[in-house]
Amino acid sequence: MPEVQILTLSCRDRPGITARVTGYLFEKGGNILEAQQFDDLESGDFFMRVAFDPGPADADAIRAGFAPLAAELGMRWSIRSRERPRKVLLMVSKFDHCLADLLYRERIGEMPMDVVGIVCNHPREALRHAAIGDIPFHHLPVDRDSKPEQEARVRELVKETGAELVVLARYMQVLSDEMADWLSGRCINIHHSFLPGFKGAKPYHQAHARGVKIIGATAHYVTADLDEGPIIHQDVEPITHADRPDDLVRKGRDIERRVLAEAVRLHLEDRVLLNGTRTVVFRS
Amino acid sequence: MPEVQILTLSCRDRPGITARVTGYLFEKGGNILEAQQFDDLESGDFFMRVAFDPGPADADAIRAGFAPLAAELGMRWSIRSRERPRKVLLMVSKFDHCLADLLYRERIGEMPMDVVGIVCNHPREALRHAAIGDIPFHHLPVDRDSKPEQEARVRELVKETGAELVVLARYMQVLSDEMADWLSGRCINIHHSFLPGFKGAKPYHQAHARGVKIIGATAHYVTADLDEGPIIHQDVEPITHADRPDDLVRKGRDIERRVLAEAVRLHLEDRVLLNGTRTVVFRS
Amino acid sequence: MPEVQILTLSCRDRPGITARVTGYLFEKGGNILEAQQFDDLESGDFFMRVAFDPGPADADAIRAGFAPLAAELGMRWSIRSRERPRKVLLMVSKFDHCLADLLYRERIGEMPMDVVGIVCNHPREALRHAAIGDIPFHHLPVDRDSKPEQEARVRELVKETGAELVVLARYMQVLSDEMADWLSGRCINIHHSFLPGFKGAKPYHQAHARGVKIIGATAHYVTADLDEGPIIHQDVEPITHADRPDDLVRKGRDIERRVLAEAVRLHLEDRVLLNGTRTVVFRS
Amino acid sequence: MPEVQILTLSCRDRPGITARVTGYLFEKGGNILEAQQFDDLESGDFFMRVAFDPGPADADAIRAGFAPLAAELGMRWSIRSRERPRKVLLMVSKFDHCLADLLYRERIGEMPMDVVGIVCNHPREALRHAAIGDIPFHHLPVDRDSKPEQEARVRELVKETGAELVVLARYMQVLSDEMADWLSGRCINIHHSFLPGFKGAKPYHQAHARGVKIIGATAHYVTADLDEGPIIHQDVEPITHADRPDDLVRKGRDIERRVLAEAVRLHLEDRVLLNGTRTVVFRS
Repeated sequence: MPEVQILTLSCRDRPGITARVTGYLFEKGGNILEAQQFDDLESGDFFMRVAFDPGPADADAIRAGFAPLAAELGMRWSIRSRERPRKVLLMVSKFDHCLADLLYRERIGEMPMDVVGIVCNHPREALRHAAIGDIPFHHLPVDRDSKPEQEARVRELVKETGAELVVLARYMQVLSDEMADWLSGRCINIHHSFLPGFKGAKPYHQAHARGVKIIGATAHYVTADLDEGPIIHQDVEPITHADRPDDLVRKGRDIERRVLAEAVRLHLEDRVLLNGTRTVVFRS
Repeated sequence: MPEVQILTLSCRDRPGITARVTGYLFEKGGNILEAQQFDDLESGDFFMRVAFDPGPADADAIRAGFAPLAAELGMRWSIRSRERPRKVLLMVSKFDHCLADLLYRERIGEMPMDVVGIVCNHPREALRHAAIGDIPFHHLPVDRDSKPEQEARVRELVKETGAELVVLARYMQVLSDEMADWLSGRCINIHHSFLPGFKGAKPYHQAHARGVKIIGATAHYVTADLDEGPIIHQDVEPITHADRPDDLVRKGRDIERRVLAEAVRLHLEDRVLLNGTRTVVFRS
Repeated sequence: MPEVQILTLSCRDRPGITARVTGYLFEKGGNILEAQQFDDLESGDFFMRVAFDPGPADADAIRAGFAPLAAELGMRWSIRSRERPRKVLLMVSKFDHCLADLLYRERIGEMPMDVVGIVCNHPREALRHAAIGDIPFHHLPVDRDSKPEQEARVRELVKETGAELVVLARYMQVLSDEMADWLSGRCINIHHSFLPGFKGAKPYHQAHARGVKIIGATAHYVTADLDEGPIIHQDVEPITHADRPDDLVRKGRDIERRVLAEAVRLHLEDRVLLNGTRTVVFRS
Repeated sequence: MPEVQILTLSCRDRPGITARVTGYLFEKGGNILEAQQFDDLESGDFFMRVAFDPGPADADAIRAGFAPLAAELGMRWSIRSRERPRKVLLMVSKFDHCLADLLYRERIGEMPMDVVGIVCNHPREALRHAAIGDIPFHHLPVDRDSKPEQEARVRELVKETGAELVVLARYMQVLSDEMADWLSGRCINIHHSFLPGFKGAKPYHQAHARGVKIIGATAHYVTADLDEGPIIHQDVEPITHADRPDDLVRKGRDIERRVLAEAVRLHLEDRVLLNGTRTVVFRS
């Protein structure tokens, strides 16, 4: 049985894009299983995601045949197999709840990814609660002075492993602007607040001090502008006056891990398209 | 500026439906603004909703030209203007919180409907909390013996007013099977529980007795099978041991009115398609 | 049957407060129906709410007898009847969804309040969607120059009507510092964002521009520091990339009205105690 | 520093219970940190939870001195240290997401428990995704014929290990009535539906077939009456028409593990009191 393919594309809107794209796939013998589109009336941009069974045709041939149409309409696009897991590099500091959660989801086959390595600025012993198994572990300590070298090493790792996505699973270090740019659109961070509230450090303490009645977490693409990257997913939980910062940290762990896992899943399934500083998210 | 049109359709799935439908609209000069589809892999049925700007073409001409394609593919379909409010008949008993809410939403222009009448089995004085204004009010009392006549009168009202949708906004009477059939797919009820839990009468008292920690409400199409109609929308709220049945009734009012309003809005925007005993809901 | 009384108090924490307070009520023949307390371990302050049936004793006598104990422990306290509705003054601008909602809740007897007047900076015709009935309506236009006089007029109204609470039900004007101070602890505002995100004007447009995936509303006590007052209640709803600012405004109306109504109910039931720039909220 | 103690009690309601209980603790030199109570006006029963610092007094002495008062008022009661982790036996079948989650929470110190053993009706290899470490693992297969012996073995394990709580963490076997009775009030099960909807087997498939728009999970004490035990906690997530049973299973895993973990935490913190077929849950 042929592998289901996912086509994603964005371009300037104009009449007939849907008809031409779906017409092309039909002509090649493909059958569309899911299709979603979005016209951003403000920007005039068009976004589309199509999951299709290529039928008798070869996926490579469909891809090759699509290129001229894509070029004509000025598309940013890709066609990838839905069945092939993506290579993912995980980066983490001392708190390993997001790491442990992502690894568990991978192990039970719920997350279509292949973890090619774990980068941590602390030694492996710091992550004693997570079941890392034989995933390559890279202890890459970092401080202000060593950041350029450390980031150079991370870059090499990304290249060597072929990592298609880097996930900052509570990696409590700020990436340099250069690194953030280099990873643009392929690096997801989890921030432990409901952005744009409580940017920066110690958001749960900020939330407690302000006396909010709900806390949250935000998964976003990393950009040079800290805590300002395009938001992929957010979720929240109610809290009360009786919750101390420690309680918020505990409650927050649950929110963080499910928000990050959902954002990673959405990305891995090609459901997130960049729209300037925002995202288009095609949920099923 | 031409009125945006909404095409909805369902039929047996087969390759090329999307391409042929969107190709037809493009050929006629239309521009697609939103498009969503769903393949039910279990039943083999296909569902689609397309919002399009007809461009220079006449909506009637597009509709006429679409008929042969629809016939060929065995579609259940419609093309309607998004701008034209639908005629709605509201039915209510003594509790008027859903009625008051729907009428307020209509008055501020948020709900694309034209309320053509209110049917109540109690006199108008019973609804003293809702702002009915000059909407035609029909006091149609009903008991076991008079139900056939009363329902006949409601049928006439539906025909006379041209009502396209009947909303049971806490109308505490069970429709006869014949009436339910006659209104199939165009009659929405709000049940004050999270179905399928607590069917039947006094659901909040049932919920209290069972000791659940969450209550809810369910908006569904009315069928002869009471509380078993296709579900359109549901929502819930947490409760505690300290909530007495009266508190559940109070908290429930908020859930009921927002669940019913959302279901009615989804229906009015042609976002709900019937799929046997279930629904396909295309949210924006 | 005697009226249930609500005792609320806050003071420096020390051993034995609960025992002395509940012992006093027991000695006077009262029976405690609900009791909640909170020790703020950071500030060292203690907060308590007790609902009690005074039994054969007179509520005034219990109040009088409590004063020496309260003085000894340095309490900020009150004992009020739970059955007596509070006098409330509503202030509103052009958007009347919160006003309409609060008035409906009052009419059906769900909100223990007596609306003694409505202040609006627009003429009564502007609020044509809400059912105001014969509630005294005060058109008090305001601009930068006339603000001192207008606020003086509002102060007079508060005094004349005996209003115990002022609710800014989407009153789109900033109160002067003096006015905010004068109403401290007895004026609730609804801000149409999930504070501290999107302070200031047009929060839904800010939310859309930032690309957040959840919007919210915040009810808080008014202080001179705009949008920084102690938060009473917050709630949120998910949104998507397809929601335009107008959709956010529509979805936000539902959140605003239920958040404000809940905050007002909590205040009217003496469930909200001030704790510096935060609140202690004793839910049932 | 002395260990904080938790007093929980229930008895027939009568005036003065709070005063006598808090008075007793004050007299012994204790300081109350948290106190909550609930009068069930329907049943006439009273429930209370008090967290107190025993001060200079000995916890055993306080316990001993409390017994006469408890006897006089006919209390069901306990006083336990908040700091001492409870012994817990986990039972599981093939799906280990709840197990893995509870173990992770224990490892990071968030759950005040000491897992004294894991019982599984499949061999250890079946749970290859969870990090069991050196926790005693008992493979106790069961079928209709062997159930009495298997349950006898579980009983012995409970006695040998001193387990104070048994958690059915997706243990897909029905306990015998005798076993359920023997574990009454100290055995928590997670049912993968929002009870009372979809009792029995394959609830996600039932939910899909019915076309509900929200799924949930329910943690409850086990009773002989299957899926009818007192509910401790419930939570839900929205789903859509596009979710197939497999998607519901995936989404359900997240709900199940957080609902079960919350219920276990509430129980371990002595926050859940039985009230007939329902529970009183004193959240902080």
